[in-house]
Amino acid sequence: MVGAAAPEDVHPQKAFGWAARDTSGVLSPFNFSRRATGDLDVTFKVLYVGICHSDLHFIKNEWGSSDFIDASYPAVPGHEVVGVVTEVGKKVQKLKVGEKVGVGCIVGSCRSCDNCGKNLENYCTKMLLTYGSTYYDGTPTYGGYSDIMVVDEHFAVRIPDNMALDVTAPLLCAGITVYSPLRHFELDKPGLHIGVVGLGGLGHMAVKFAKAFGAKVTVISTSPNKKDQALNLLRADSFLISSDPQQIQEGAGTMDGIIDTVSAKHPLIQLIGLLKTEGRLVMVGAPVKPLELPVLPLLLGRKMVAGSGIGGVKETQEMIDFAAKHDIKADIELIPMDYVNTAMERVQKADVRYRFVIDIGNTLKPT
Amino acid sequence: MVGAAAPEDVHPQKAFGWAARDTSGVLSPFNFSRRATGDLDVTFKVLYVGICHSDLHFIKNEWGSSDFIDASYPAVPGHEVVGVVTEVGKKVQKLKVGEKVGVGCIVGSCRSCDNCGKNLENYCTKMLLTYGSTYYDGTPTYGGYSDIMVVDEHFAVRIPDNMALDVTAPLLCAGITVYSPLRHFELDKPGLHIGVVGLGGLGHMAVKFAKAFGAKVTVISTSPNKKDQALNLLRADSFLISSDPQQIQEGAGTMDGIIDTVSAKHPLIQLIGLLKTEGRLVMVGAPVKPLELPVLPLLLGRKMVAGSGIGGVKETQEMIDFAAKHDIKADIELIPMDYVNTAMERVQKADVRYRFVIDIGNTLKPT
Repeated sequence: MVGAAAPEDVHPQKAFGWAARDTSGVLSPFNFSRRATGDLDVTFKVLYVGICHSDLHFIKNEWGSSDFIDASYPAVPGHEVVGVVTEVGKKVQKLKVGEKVGVGCIVGSCRSCDNCGKNLENYCTKMLLTYGSTYYDGTPTYGGYSDIMVVDEHFAVRIPDNMALDVTAPLLCAGITVYSPLRHFELDKPGLHIGVVGLGGLGHMAVKFAKAFGAKVTVISTSPNKKDQALNLLRADSFLISSDPQQIQEGAGTMDGIIDTVSAKHPLIQLIGLLKTEGRLVMVGAPVKPLELPVLPLLLGRKMVAGSGIGGVKETQEMIDFAAKHDIKADIELIPMDYVNTAMERVQKADVRYRFVIDIGNTLKPT
Repeated sequence: MVGAAAPEDVHPQKAFGWAARDTSGVLSPFNFSRRATGDLDVTFKVLYVGICHSDLHFIKNEWGSSDFIDASYPAVPGHEVVGVVTEVGKKVQKLKVGEKVGVGCIVGSCRSCDNCGKNLENYCTKMLLTYGSTYYDGTPTYGGYSDIMVVDEHFAVRIPDNMALDVTAPLLCAGITVYSPLRHFELDKPGLHIGVVGLGGLGHMAVKFAKAFGAKVTVISTSPNKKDQALNLLRADSFLISSDPQQIQEGAGTMDGIIDTVSAKHPLIQLIGLLKTEGRLVMVGAPVKPLELPVLPLLLGRKMVAGSGIGGVKETQEMIDFAAKHDIKADIELIPMDYVNTAMERVQKADVRYRFVIDIGNTLKPT
């Protein structure tokens, strides 16, 4: 049924964005359509969208298909999406026309399992991703590299009027991905010592949230040239080179928790050594290949290695409100839509400080 | 100083036991001595001692020397030690002459660090082990394969009069090693589903404690021939072959926690798959080589892999009292002292159901 109609004719609302057409990952203009605004839906004009490293994996089909990802083309990425509401369904209560709104990685979940009951839609086995999933009506979900979006209000978050939208976009994925484990693993108490591994989109947000919680923050990196940024730009309290045995020795047993944002294969033994007794190493990057886990160092201090993936909608709203209160903003490089393919090449090389945000509202032009 | 005196002349209390003399690990009779009963010390006649797999590693010097282990010979193993008090120092309050007493893996700690302050002597970086450490007086600690022991009362536990000592000995190491993580990681609530990997000394205790806490217990093993023991002898609720993809698939996402007692290298991915969201895989065995840790499965369910090592003295007492109340006993094979070398060979082959206990009181004869 769906296959028969052209993308721009499947739904009644005309939409326009940029899509990848094959595993080259090159993005180009794409006319498609969005569903009509349902009773519980919010339609909004997209103003800004962040570029997450996941977008790059997705458009190149590096994850393949799985329970969560349907890697078919055309593929419209983007899950750090902010804009202004243009229409609401008649049963919508959360948002009004003209209000600022954000959408992160999830646009659907079963709403009935234990996880959904605990506001952990992000761990629902039937969650639908903002892009790369098949929606309930059988059509593909298309992300925020586009002019408009339609979303069930449950999966939209309100953005306070005083927040600038461009620097807020990355909070919807990078922000909640580090905020949630800091909260859940009780790494949000003043006076704790928190390590942050990797200083990219996730890492720089982790420094900011951990500082806002009142922690002493140490950035852990393999790159000595990140030291100046870490200490002077992001105001981390200290900096540690993870490949330097002396620095690792000096830092041993000093950290309550570590947020590890690195997706490349890397050793854990030094990080585990930095933890105090009962310290928590939380992985939020997802290396494709298994890492080496030394077990005895865990036993000798009742330590743990945990994983955490984004966050539920309720917690995402809480994170946005916390960011508004503490004036937490992503450090971004604002780019026009037609710079996106160059930006992707730079993302691949980690050449960005610290998040590209596409200025959709001013630069996405219909062809 | 110490090196000048023969072992039997170093201290005033004559002692006798069995020791390894070299890395062959063969044990033979050994005359040595114990310190005088200090003001805070308890001296007791050893009646039974359990054989822990660690004893075998120690006598063969498979761990080498480290911060905790001083692998010098003669080496007297034994850290599941029970007996009857024969003398107490004048400041001792915990125990009286004639009472039953037990000593586990630890005989000293700094008593002033954060961990000691939280009754976690087992994570004190200055803890002294029952064997293989150097005591405060500069002499080696000798374990419980011997006729008497002298211990600071802080590191002794009271054993209720109604407990049989032979089946209680293994609780001092194997028991507390599984009890502590069940408690700490909140796997002690009725109605939870707990997996136990490996059915040896630790594993069989984990089944018993988890059942006593009111859990549904599934034994996870690579050996189909353990099924009958697991279900009929230990009264586990179910049995799962970890190498059978169908059984792993059927059990996916059903367990609140898993206690993994296996010291050999083994895959974790199946075990992580068995966990529910926020499930906890706790390692209590210590494989020498790193294990492979798949990270994405942790992220997709906020799961964790933790380690836990024995327990503090306060919790060991709590465990003994819990065992007394719930009639928890180790399943043992009681052996005479001169069977110990054969027993060690059988421990090496995991040919014991489930713990050897040496009948020191009746079979250790001075040469």
